[in-house]
Amino acid sequence: MIFRQIFESETHTYSYLLGDEATGGAILIDPVKSMVDQYIQLLNELDLALKISVDTHLHADHITGSGLLKKNTGCAIYQGEPSRSKGVSHTFEDGDTLSIGEVELKAIYTPGHTDDSYCFLVEQTRPYLLFTGDTLLIRGTGRTDFQNGSSRQQYESLFLKLLAMPESTKVFPGHDYHGMTMSTIKEEKQFNPRLQIKGCKEYEVLMSSLNLSRPRFMDEAIPANLNCGSEP
Amino acid sequence: MIFRQIFESETHTYSYLLGDEATGGAILIDPVKSMVDQYIQLLNELDLALKISVDTHLHADHITGSGLLKKNTGCAIYQGEPSRSKGVSHTFEDGDTLSIGEVELKAIYTPGHTDDSYCFLVEQTRPYLLFTGDTLLIRGTGRTDFQNGSSRQQYESLFLKLLAMPESTKVFPGHDYHGMTMSTIKEEKQFNPRLQIKGCKEYEVLMSSLNLSRPRFMDEAIPANLNCGSEP
Repeated sequence: MIFRQIFESETHTYSYLLGDEATGGAILIDPVKSMVDQYIQLLNELDLALKISVDTHLHADHITGSGLLKKNTGCAIYQGEPSRSKGVSHTFEDGDTLSIGEVELKAIYTPGHTDDSYCFLVEQTRPYLLFTGDTLLIRGTGRTDFQNGSSRQQYESLFLKLLAMPESTKVFPGHDYHGMTMSTIKEEKQFNPRLQIKGCKEYEVLMSSLNLSRPRFMDEAIPANLNCGSEP
Repeated sequence: MIFRQIFESETHTYSYLLGDEATGGAILIDPVKSMVDQYIQLLNELDLALKISVDTHLHADHITGSGLLKKNTGCAIYQGEPSRSKGVSHTFEDGDTLSIGEVELKAIYTPGHTDDSYCFLVEQTRPYLLFTGDTLLIRGTGRTDFQNGSSRQQYESLFLKLLAMPESTKVFPGHDYHGMTMSTIKEEKQFNPRLQIKGCKEYEVLMSSLNLSRPRFMDEAIPANLNCGSEP
């Protein structure tokens, strides 16, 4: 499997390219619109054809490249239910598998940051690879105070689903603001300050006390992302 | 082997942490001074003891964290000959091996960006891992116009040493300015615009025509790095 992590520095967003060497097909997770030309160049250089562009959720902090990638490469756009975006090719649900050749991403429904948040698990590698979007960040978690977010649901997504995975599982988040590129379930269980709590109630209190400012690009990003980032 | 790539965003510098699970020892390649607290926290969390801090060369664009790491962790500072820095614990030459338990870094002398530029090769993984400092960048190469740089020497380092490695070898550079985190020898051979040339003379002409501006932090970084980044 070809694997690339690509960083967009303005919004500190990580995108992930997974390529299947046998068929030459590829999946991009959480592409950023401003970097679409760069993704396409890399796909061409690696001799990969983009088959699927998938968003972990409706982003409020950057504009997805899915629509532009569909236009330029003919890839399909996948989003998890309850997706509200126009232009999606296929929707998926908890437990569904997105596959290109031998590359298989298992969709894990992890509501909380938004009500359409999913993580993706690759089980054919050792250790497993887990793409956690804005649900689990390195030493942090995604905010839950808008877009039908719910700290109770996020607690369940984190503690009952993600932290139940093998401790060696590699964690690849949707963002990092401190230069970290990956983590593991073991580390996050031990050292993520938001996960050192004694139950759902404590997590809800913690998340409601964060007093976060409104995302810079939210008013631009959400309407655009409801159209898969394409021009109307 | 524990492996982490860490990004310092002000100077777009990548540092690399390699940990040996058997002995709990670790090596840091090209640490940045402003991030030393973060490296130490990560080392502690991963239950690793830093044994070696090593610089690929005398940096002109950021201040090395080697001196501060030595002070705070007791690690040794390694630099390649002809190192001119004060405070170095051990120097090495082409072909020497830096090892911590089962983690072995083979030093490859690759002058050209500077006359003390080295790359480091890990041969116990498949594919190999190659840490290329400022000699080979992703779709680029390090400038050769100061610090005893030489485009002729860099040509030989690139074409006779680095590009002679197995094409699957993973390339981890000292910097990237476009969000890329890794490449391979195969890709660089095919798509690095500076390597699509017909001989040493053409490379020298190319490098002499770049008209690069003076590095922002050079006047601060070089004197500091001649003291391993420590206060005088």
